[in-house]
Amino acid sequence: MHKVVTVDLEKDILAENRRIANENSELLKSHGITAFDFLGAIGSGKTLIIERLIEVLKAKGKRAGVIAGDVSGDDDYQRFIKHGVPAANINTGKECHLDAHLVDHALEDLPLDKLDYVFIENVGNLVCPVDFPVGSHKRVVVISVTEGDDMVRKHPPIFAFSDVVIINKVDLSDAMEVDPKILERDARRTNPGAKIIMMDARRGKGMDELVNALGL
Amino acid sequence: MHKVVTVDLEKDILAENRRIANENSELLKSHGITAFDFLGAIGSGKTLIIERLIEVLKAKGKRAGVIAGDVSGDDDYQRFIKHGVPAANINTGKECHLDAHLVDHALEDLPLDKLDYVFIENVGNLVCPVDFPVGSHKRVVVISVTEGDDMVRKHPPIFAFSDVVIINKVDLSDAMEVDPKILERDARRTNPGAKIIMMDARRGKGMDELVNALGL
Repeated sequence: MHKVVTVDLEKDILAENRRIANENSELLKSHGITAFDFLGAIGSGKTLIIERLIEVLKAKGKRAGVIAGDVSGDDDYQRFIKHGVPAANINTGKECHLDAHLVDHALEDLPLDKLDYVFIENVGNLVCPVDFPVGSHKRVVVISVTEGDDMVRKHPPIFAFSDVVIINKVDLSDAMEVDPKILERDARRTNPGAKIIMMDARRGKGMDELVNALGL
Repeated sequence: MHKVVTVDLEKDILAENRRIANENSELLKSHGITAFDFLGAIGSGKTLIIERLIEVLKAKGKRAGVIAGDVSGDDDYQRFIKHGVPAANINTGKECHLDAHLVDHALEDLPLDKLDYVFIENVGNLVCPVDFPVGSHKRVVVISVTEGDDMVRKHPPIFAFSDVVIINKVDLSDAMEVDPKILERDARRTNPGAKIIMMDARRGKGMDELVNALGL
């Protein structure tokens, strides 16, 4: 009995999320905005990579806004606003992912008429966001070599779900005794169509490739 | 309408989980087994720390079993069985946490009469396991400095939920430009009663303190 109710309810929730995600996508399109959903474990470097992209866009005269999603706190939001860009902070409370409805509300807080791009930083983990597209144009999943060489094998769905895979902190590969080629191989097997980028975001390695992959 | 159904269903699921967690706890007690639930982000070092503890127990003539929980794959399970200990592998498929029912089944696969301790490695993230106690005696949350200094502030519930907090990979603090004292301060604020241990599991730093904290 419970099973049936759960499954139906889950279907309802997912269908409703997809409906709102489509609305978000249309809303962004109507403002000429391209949006990217950044996924990945905590500490993988999502925030820093978005900060770097904001600066790249500034140098090109383009304007970016950011939606920062976390269970709690505003650490990332505070980092973003230091770059002088409009940002919205979402605290999910107990949920381990953003959903289209939360992003819809956050978009209301951004000056969409003045933006060319919106970066959405999802809640940090490699599991939950998979079922909840938020209406972005591309999804970018960030992992780092400090997480070990088995990250892709342990979480195939999120890699299948993403358009771009960033393998970050490759400068620490030797110190961590982790071979980034294994992560790259597993990512390619899981998602042959994805663009895979080796990155050291602190030192800027891989940024040009990412900018190209996102069409910025 | 949906909200009400969801909330009731969630209450049912959580209550049922607690009931089975209590049964697991009683089952373990009846075999004289102490169990530890290891929580923490992917790549924080949970597997290596459990591997180290298995060896510590071996040296003391004690016998440990392990339950390895992951969304997908058997990487951790394969590491555990190399230590010659009984282990059970749980793949959660899409769920981002173990639950008491999954652990109940895994316990059936372990030779409980021959064990003194069971280590349970939960699915790697700092959000989902909070609502699902599995019947362990103590919970240990593992974070590492490579995840950044805001990990505790971003996920207070899991720190409040745990008995022991391990701050791992402190040897990389300088390279990561992360001050482990900030993590320690935030953890102490969130959970004044928790034992907080600075660790470098690769080199064995902090192991004696952990062994003491767990009463091994």
